[in-house]
Amino acid sequence: MIKTIRLIMIMLLLQHVGFSQAREILKVREWREKNENRLLKEYLNFLSVPNIAADTVSLLKNADIIMEMLRTSGVQKVQLLKPVTKGAAPAVFGEVITPGAKQTIIFYAHYDGQPVNPANWYKGLDPFKPVLTNGPLGNSFQILPVPDAQTSIDPDWRIFGRGASDDKAGVMSIITAYQALVSSSQKPSVNIKFFFEGEEEAGSAHLGEIMETHRSLLGSDLWIMCDGPVHQSGRKSISFGVRGDANMELILYGPNKPLHSGHYGNWVRNPAWQLVQLMATMKNDKGEVTIKGYYDDVAPLSELEKKALREMPQVDEQMKKELGIVTTEMEGKSLYESYNFPSLNINGIRSADVGAMAANVIPVKASVVLDLRQVAGTDWQKQQQKVVEHIRSRGYYVTEKEPTEEERAKYPDIIQVIRKSGYNAQKTRMDLPVAEKLINAIQSTTAEKVVRVPTMGGSLPLFIFEQTLGATVITVPIANHDNNQHAENENIRIRNLWNGIETMASIMLMK
Amino acid sequence: MIKTIRLIMIMLLLQHVGFSQAREILKVREWREKNENRLLKEYLNFLSVPNIAADTVSLLKNADIIMEMLRTSGVQKVQLLKPVTKGAAPAVFGEVITPGAKQTIIFYAHYDGQPVNPANWYKGLDPFKPVLTNGPLGNSFQILPVPDAQTSIDPDWRIFGRGASDDKAGVMSIITAYQALVSSSQKPSVNIKFFFEGEEEAGSAHLGEIMETHRSLLGSDLWIMCDGPVHQSGRKSISFGVRGDANMELILYGPNKPLHSGHYGNWVRNPAWQLVQLMATMKNDKGEVTIKGYYDDVAPLSELEKKALREMPQVDEQMKKELGIVTTEMEGKSLYESYNFPSLNINGIRSADVGAMAANVIPVKASVVLDLRQVAGTDWQKQQQKVVEHIRSRGYYVTEKEPTEEERAKYPDIIQVIRKSGYNAQKTRMDLPVAEKLINAIQSTTAEKVVRVPTMGGSLPLFIFEQTLGATVITVPIANHDNNQHAENENIRIRNLWNGIETMASIMLMK
Repeated sequence: MIKTIRLIMIMLLLQHVGFSQAREILKVREWREKNENRLLKEYLNFLSVPNIAADTVSLLKNADIIMEMLRTSGVQKVQLLKPVTKGAAPAVFGEVITPGAKQTIIFYAHYDGQPVNPANWYKGLDPFKPVLTNGPLGNSFQILPVPDAQTSIDPDWRIFGRGASDDKAGVMSIITAYQALVSSSQKPSVNIKFFFEGEEEAGSAHLGEIMETHRSLLGSDLWIMCDGPVHQSGRKSISFGVRGDANMELILYGPNKPLHSGHYGNWVRNPAWQLVQLMATMKNDKGEVTIKGYYDDVAPLSELEKKALREMPQVDEQMKKELGIVTTEMEGKSLYESYNFPSLNINGIRSADVGAMAANVIPVKASVVLDLRQVAGTDWQKQQQKVVEHIRSRGYYVTEKEPTEEERAKYPDIIQVIRKSGYNAQKTRMDLPVAEKLINAIQSTTAEKVVRVPTMGGSLPLFIFEQTLGATVITVPIANHDNNQHAENENIRIRNLWNGIETMASIMLMK
Repeated sequence: MIKTIRLIMIMLLLQHVGFSQAREILKVREWREKNENRLLKEYLNFLSVPNIAADTVSLLKNADIIMEMLRTSGVQKVQLLKPVTKGAAPAVFGEVITPGAKQTIIFYAHYDGQPVNPANWYKGLDPFKPVLTNGPLGNSFQILPVPDAQTSIDPDWRIFGRGASDDKAGVMSIITAYQALVSSSQKPSVNIKFFFEGEEEAGSAHLGEIMETHRSLLGSDLWIMCDGPVHQSGRKSISFGVRGDANMELILYGPNKPLHSGHYGNWVRNPAWQLVQLMATMKNDKGEVTIKGYYDDVAPLSELEKKALREMPQVDEQMKKELGIVTTEMEGKSLYESYNFPSLNINGIRSADVGAMAANVIPVKASVVLDLRQVAGTDWQKQQQKVVEHIRSRGYYVTEKEPTEEERAKYPDIIQVIRKSGYNAQKTRMDLPVAEKLINAIQSTTAEKVVRVPTMGGSLPLFIFEQTLGATVITVPIANHDNNQHAENENIRIRNLWNGIETMASIMLMK
C-alpha cells in the first residue's frame, strides 16, 4: 500500500519536473523520511547551544558541533577558518571533491543568531531551550513532547528557538542534504565546499579578513547563500540580491542625574523630548526619509529586474491581513518594490521606563538604535554620515564618546553617535547561465514555479564576497516567511526544513 | 571643654533666633546627639522594608513598624485608617492631646515609595538594602560600615535607599521630633496628630475615601506636609502650594508580531516612528506645549506670590552647573517661575530594545508614559482630555483597551490611552496668620532666613485635604535637594534628617 502511494506521488511529481533529477530527489526524500526522528533530535540539540554575538564560548561550541556533523558525513578538510583578529568567531569550513566535476559550489549559512530578550518570548518558550510545537502561535498552540522513534512527524509542526530559522536551518539543511546524497548512494555533480559564518548577525565584521586569510580554500564558481525566508506565497524562491545594512545608535544626553519631574519638569530639558523632536525631522508622513541626499545614490532598476517584479506573485494584501495592518509606509509601492529604497528603521528607542516601572522622572538620556538598509548604489558609511550631518544641522554637538563634563558644560545639545560596522547591498545579474541551471535544479524539487526575486529585503554581506573573492553569489532561502526571524518566538516549520534539504541536494546535483 | 563649645554654639544661635524656643530646640538637639547611633540603626531597618505600590504585604509591614514607633513614643489612638476599598494601603494614625492646647496640628508624611529598577542603581547599591555612605555619588564615594555606639556620625554622610528622602525621612523626623520632646521632658504647645499615607506615589487614589471614612479623627487647624526637598540654597523653606499631577500612558500599535527590519522595513509602518512623529507635534522648540488650550486655564499669580518669587535666593545658575546643563526648557523663566506652568513630561519612552539587546526588527508597539503637572486653575482630567483630543486630531483612533483584531483591521493608526488617576494643584494663601507663626517657629531653629516658596514643583494630593476636610495645608520639606528622589540612588544627607527633627519639633512647640 505504502509503495503504491509512493509510486503515485512519484508520477504526480514527474508531471512537473525533469525526470532524471526528480528520481534522485525522491531518494533524498526517502532517506529523510526514514531518519526524521533522529534529524529532529539532532537539530533540537544544535539549537540548544546559545549563539549570540557576545557569547564567544558558546559560539565556539556551535562551531564544534558543526565540525562534528561535517566529519560524520565524511566531509574532508574540516577546519575552523579564523580571522587574524583575536576573539572573533571563526567560520567552519569543509570540502568534498567529486571526481570529474567541473564546477565548485560553496554553500553558505551562518550559525550565530540575533540577540534575545527571553522575557519577551511567549510563555513556556525559551530561546535556547528549543521545543517542538503543533504549529505557529495562536489559539490552539501547544508544545509537544519530543517524539519517540515510532511517532510520525507532522510537517506542519514547528520548532521554536533562536536560530531555528535564521540560520541554523541553513547549516542543518546543507549538511543533511549532503548526508542524504551519500547515504542514498548518490554522487554530487559538483565539487562542494561548506562555509558557515559565526558573525553574520553582528555585522560580519571579520568576514573579509577570514576570506583574505583563507583565500586559497575559497575558490568557486558559485556561492549559494542559504539564509532568509522563501517567498510569502510559499513557493520556493531564489534571490539575486540583498540589501546592505548598517546600524547606528544615538544617545542624547540630558541632566547628569535623573531628576524628579515635578521639581525640575519644564525647566530642565528632557532628553526624551529632544530625541522625539530630532527623530521626527528625519522622516515625513509619507514614510520618506527627509535627511538631505538620502536617496541620491540609489541605482535604477534594470529591465530584467522590473520584469521579475511584475511576474512575482502579489502578496501585499495577504501580508497586510497576516500582519494586522491597514496601510503601508510607502503607499502605492509593493513590498518587493520597497526593497529598492534605502530604509531608516527604528530598531528600538528607550528613555527611562514605561508600564509598571515608569517613575515621575526626567531621564538622564534617551537612546535610539537605527537600522539603515542599503540598496544598489548607496554606500553604508556615506549614509551614516548623512544621518550625522542631519543631526549637526539641527544644532547638535556630535561626539563619538560619552560626553565629558567639559563638553556638557559647553554644548546645550549633545548626542553621542555610535557607528556600527555595516556593508553595502549586492546584486548578481539575473541573466547569468549559472542562474538558469540553478533554477532548473531547484525546479526539479517542486511542482510550483520557482520565484525569481531581484533583491531580498534582508541583508547578507554578499558585497564582501564579490569584492574579496570575485565570487558569484545567489541566495536560496528555505525558511517559512512567518518565522519571526530577528525577534522573539523565532521558529521554523518542519516542512521547510525537509524542503530545504531537497533544495540543497538538488543544487549539489545541478547539471 | 565640650560644655564651653556648646555654650558658644548656644550664644551664636541666640543672636539669630528667639531665645525661648531656641533653648527648647537645643534640648532636642542634645537628646538627638546622644541617640544618633540608635536612630540611624532604626532608620536603616525601616528603609530595608520594600515600599513600592504593587507590594501590599511589604506596605503593611511598613505600617506596622510605624505603629510600633508611635506606640513606643507614647502616642495615643495608634491605628490603621483603612479606606472602604479592599486591598488599598491604609494610612497610619496617632494622636497626642496636650492639656490646655488651643490648636491641633496634623503632621503628614508618606511611607510608600516610587517604583525601582535595581539594575539602574550604582554598583553595590540596592534600593532595599539601605547603606550609609561618606557622601553623594562621586569620585571619592564609599559605602561605610554601620557605626558602632562609639563612632561619631558625620552629618555629611548619607543614607542610600528607596524612600530614604521621599518620604520615610518625613515619617522618621516627625516621630523622632515627638520622641525628642518627650524624652527631654518638654511639652508640645499644640495637640498633635500623625497621619502617614501609603499610596502617595501611586496617586493617592484612596486618600479621599480614607478621609471621608475617618473624618471624625482628622479635625485640625493646620496640616504640615513633610515631603520634598528644601530649597536648593540649602536654606530651610516652607511651601504654600504644590502642583497637581496626572499620568497617562500611550501605546501605539504596529504589526501584530515583530518583523525582520530587512524583509519588511520601509513597507510595514514602524510604531516607534509613528510615536516620535506624534509626540513631536505636542511640544515646540521653545519647550511650549502645542496641544490646543493646554495653558488656557492657568490662574495668574497673586502680588504676594510675585513678591515671594522675587525675594527667593536665585539658584538657576547653581542648578545648571550642578546638573550639567547649559540651557533650560523655558529660556528666560527661572526654575521657580516654571512651576507655575502645567508641564507635559516624558517619564519614559520605549519600543523594543537599545544597546546590546537591540535587534533589527520592526517593533509591535511603542509606549510613552507622560506626566502632566497641574497648576492653579488647571484640571487634571481636562488636561488629559486635551492630550487625547490632540491625538485624535492627528488622525488616530483612540481606544482605552488593547485593540481587537477587528479594530486593527479597520483603523490604520491606533493608540491605546491609559488614563491614570491624578489630582489638581493646591495653594494656601501666603498671608494667613498661622503661616506667620509657622515661619517664626522654624526660624527659631536656624540662623538663615527661611525661604517662602509660593509653590513647589512637586506634587502632593493637598487638593483633596482642602476639598474633603476644609483643611489648611502648608508643606515643610526637609530633604537635601540633591536626593535623587523618584530615581535610582535616592539618598538623604544625615544633616537633613537631624535638621528635620528640629524643624518638626519647632512646629510642635509653635507659639
